[in-house]
Amino acid sequence: MRIIGTGIGQGVATGPVVRMPEPLATPSDVQSTIGAEAEKARTVESLARVARALEERGAKAGGTARDVLEAQAMMAEDPTLADSLDELLAQGKTAERAVSEAFAAFRDQLAAMGGYLGERAADLDDVAQRVIADLLDVPAPGVPDLEEPFVLVARDLAPADTALLDLDKVLALVTSDGGPTSHTAILAREKSIVAIVGAADALSLGEGTTVVVDAAAGVVIAEASAEEVADAKARIAERAALVDAPATPGALADGTSIPLLANLGSSKAAKAAAEGGAEGVGLFRTEFLFLDAGGSAPTIEEQRAHYVELLEAFPGQKVVVRLLDAGADKPLAFLNDAHEENPALGLRGLRALRVSEDILREQLTALAEADKLTSADLWVMAPMVSTVEETAYIVALSKELGLKTAGIMVEVPSIALMADKVFEIADFASIGTNDLTQYTLAADRLLGSVASFQDPWHPAVLRLVGEVGAAGGRAGKPVGICGEAAADPLLAVVLVGLGATTLSMSPSALADVRASLLRYTLDEAKSLAETALAASGAAESRAAVTAAVESLKETHS
Amino acid sequence: MRIIGTGIGQGVATGPVVRMPEPLATPSDVQSTIGAEAEKARTVESLARVARALEERGAKAGGTARDVLEAQAMMAEDPTLADSLDELLAQGKTAERAVSEAFAAFRDQLAAMGGYLGERAADLDDVAQRVIADLLDVPAPGVPDLEEPFVLVARDLAPADTALLDLDKVLALVTSDGGPTSHTAILAREKSIVAIVGAADALSLGEGTTVVVDAAAGVVIAEASAEEVADAKARIAERAALVDAPATPGALADGTSIPLLANLGSSKAAKAAAEGGAEGVGLFRTEFLFLDAGGSAPTIEEQRAHYVELLEAFPGQKVVVRLLDAGADKPLAFLNDAHEENPALGLRGLRALRVSEDILREQLTALAEADKLTSADLWVMAPMVSTVEETAYIVALSKELGLKTAGIMVEVPSIALMADKVFEIADFASIGTNDLTQYTLAADRLLGSVASFQDPWHPAVLRLVGEVGAAGGRAGKPVGICGEAAADPLLAVVLVGLGATTLSMSPSALADVRASLLRYTLDEAKSLAETALAASGAAESRAAVTAAVESLKETHS
Repeated sequence: MRIIGTGIGQGVATGPVVRMPEPLATPSDVQSTIGAEAEKARTVESLARVARALEERGAKAGGTARDVLEAQAMMAEDPTLADSLDELLAQGKTAERAVSEAFAAFRDQLAAMGGYLGERAADLDDVAQRVIADLLDVPAPGVPDLEEPFVLVARDLAPADTALLDLDKVLALVTSDGGPTSHTAILAREKSIVAIVGAADALSLGEGTTVVVDAAAGVVIAEASAEEVADAKARIAERAALVDAPATPGALADGTSIPLLANLGSSKAAKAAAEGGAEGVGLFRTEFLFLDAGGSAPTIEEQRAHYVELLEAFPGQKVVVRLLDAGADKPLAFLNDAHEENPALGLRGLRALRVSEDILREQLTALAEADKLTSADLWVMAPMVSTVEETAYIVALSKELGLKTAGIMVEVPSIALMADKVFEIADFASIGTNDLTQYTLAADRLLGSVASFQDPWHPAVLRLVGEVGAAGGRAGKPVGICGEAAADPLLAVVLVGLGATTLSMSPSALADVRASLLRYTLDEAKSLAETALAASGAAESRAAVTAAVESLKETHS
Repeated sequence: MRIIGTGIGQGVATGPVVRMPEPLATPSDVQSTIGAEAEKARTVESLARVARALEERGAKAGGTARDVLEAQAMMAEDPTLADSLDELLAQGKTAERAVSEAFAAFRDQLAAMGGYLGERAADLDDVAQRVIADLLDVPAPGVPDLEEPFVLVARDLAPADTALLDLDKVLALVTSDGGPTSHTAILAREKSIVAIVGAADALSLGEGTTVVVDAAAGVVIAEASAEEVADAKARIAERAALVDAPATPGALADGTSIPLLANLGSSKAAKAAAEGGAEGVGLFRTEFLFLDAGGSAPTIEEQRAHYVELLEAFPGQKVVVRLLDAGADKPLAFLNDAHEENPALGLRGLRALRVSEDILREQLTALAEADKLTSADLWVMAPMVSTVEETAYIVALSKELGLKTAGIMVEVPSIALMADKVFEIADFASIGTNDLTQYTLAADRLLGSVASFQDPWHPAVLRLVGEVGAAGGRAGKPVGICGEAAADPLLAVVLVGLGATTLSMSPSALADVRASLLRYTLDEAKSLAETALAASGAAESRAAVTAAVESLKETHS
């Protein structure tokens, strides 16, 4: 049997299925046999134990995972809950039942207040499950802790599940829910885990059966035959060889140079990316510096040390650092304090930095100091720029503080449409295809019900990329791509045809994209881009380019 | 003294200033002199009284205001609050102080849970203020209830304030906070109230002083002289004459016909709009039918009766009905049940209707039936369309169910960029400039901190309008504008230059736009459009067109 879903990346894996435990059943409403006092003692101990465990997990995970887990730990010890538990236990209920009822009532109360507390409600449910599992002395819900590597099959993974996933044990992830922008998919891309999401029939996979997970094809082969497993293993070895092959600089078949750069989320990963063949860094995210600093911004000295570590990994090479992109899905208390109805359309990125210009100036100062101490070619760029005026502001401020090269991210339709004027001011532009797709189609890229709109193959998105590419070409200035689109080996060729001069991606995608670019000349890439632009939608665009590639292959042979 | 702000509309008003009461001081923490029992009785009575008053106001207001006010009434009687009040009163606090502390604690607790409860927190504050005012027997905060008409000066108006505003008494609104998309501004546009928002110095205006409020100029003249008042009264009379003049069909100076249509939010307003010179309806919003129906969708019969009432007001004329646009700032329980992190980018408009296709089919059926019973020229259009595939879906379904003319709203950048393919399928397109601006600039149009981005003069927005206009021209199909932009007399000319064939607006704006169009030929409008497109930002675009208009005036004279 073949199960279809959305593959993340190009990998292949094979191994035995392990299923995520299903949620616990609701404890039945029987009278306690040990009395209210004893039940209360059990409850208090269990709540404390779960709170401590969540805190420990949080401390171990760090970063945003810590915040999530600490908030859950606080929920377990909420005084309102304690009052409500006392009342239920006094009625003679068991600890398990009282916990179930009290958390459910708390959850309903919150949800009823505004109708938009679904997210916290889910967190409360998770805490309740952990407490009940602790009381019953059964394994807590979550990723199983096993000795042998396995293919994890789940409905979807919660942030708490992914925070401490043991990557040595997980051969692949298969989920029945979630789309290409779900938590699971993002994790899979970041960590180069073979994954298929949104595979509706995944839950029919039996525990322990051997499966082949083919992300490139978006297929799980259930109860794989020995032949299918052998074939998968051959492909795994082939891909490993591709990855291990000495990395040549990125280029098209006609020799046109297209430097292949890495997207990095921390300076720790820099060295590995450089060794893996990245010709520099196309997107260095700096949020981790600020998230890890807790309640306040890191000092100039702290930041400088990180930037120096990053830049030293790429002597003489280009490193593009994105200024702090806070807000939307990654709010920071000291920058984003107000509630926003639509944070993705709110005071985020450069908009938030401008309001707290001291933080912006400190970051630029730290970057300029690190630049002087190292030999890498440092470029800085601002996120979430939507007007030419903002472009002028950030370029002028960067130069004032000693940076040599300053540009902007193109994530908002308006700035793509103003590309000619942008290049009169900025040294370069880098297109963030994820957000550009989100805003162009007006569909939240983290929301499952509109996930089908989040496809960078859409000709409207490609037209905007093409406008920026053409404007960059006229101005003789570089146009990078640093969204997920650059990691799609075929779309990468189309993006080059639209005028992209560099591509930046997760280091795990470099080998596949390098191999794909080598198959086409610049003229062929341009022709494929024309084909994509002429389509009426994302699926039609992908299909038309795939067909054109097939006919090119026939011409070549 | 002149106070500068953002004027809404083109009106002028003059009258005495009345200030909104400032919030009550926090009750001091003194021991009760009447004892805990008596304080508790006072508290319980007061909470009940405020809850009843809020419910009554809600029932009177109807629609969304009712939901807001009923939620507030529920807060006043929340059991958790009651527990906390009991505890504070038992400590010997006064009712006023206990209410203040209990609500504040509740508010902080909610806000701390997720950091995004600011909005509900403000509602809680409002309820607390009402209860304390009731206990102190002083007027509740809110719009004063006076005999004589006045100019209302406030920081900003809350939804609860605007819900029951007596329009016969309010000559003009002046707020120190809020931008062109604040609640106050939206209300002012809807109800044709002269208004200036975001006038930072407004709170320096003394109670009772006579002011002149000039919305077209965005200026409040404080302590106006007799001459200034006389001048204002002359302009008010002049504008009244313009409005009362027999309405001619909308046209440019060279005779090019540009039908001027009305935006309507209910069938009750249809007759007045027709009598006021609207040549039809360019945007009939149908949300009110669904909001007023309470928890479920209205029946086909109920809908048909409303549509017949609307269509009968425009015999032989065009009436464009927008299909239910639920979600984002106007969620409906039966369509939009899930929590969304960014509802403006969520399952709204046609996306939500497609998921509940029965509701969509019923609405189309009711419209088709009403069309057969009347002689108006009924067009239907779908909101929040972002792909060509969606366009094909809604046009086919509309035709299947008996509608003659079906088109789409252009509010999302992707669909503007696909305009050529849209006109292969749709009979017409209508551009919603408010949402198109919001999505193109990626800035929430209801969020004050990014209000400066919400300007339809931005050349990126105008480029998209121009793309749709040009594509409509090539296909020989109509392109309407139904956002606020069409109500700006100068921008209206630019929009016609970009290819708009009809303009739809609040009926109150028709006279000014009609007069403005008559001043320019189509060639002049096209030249002004080129000027706007060549600018680097919204302010530059407006300034360049204003300058070009001045030099045109010199040429004409």
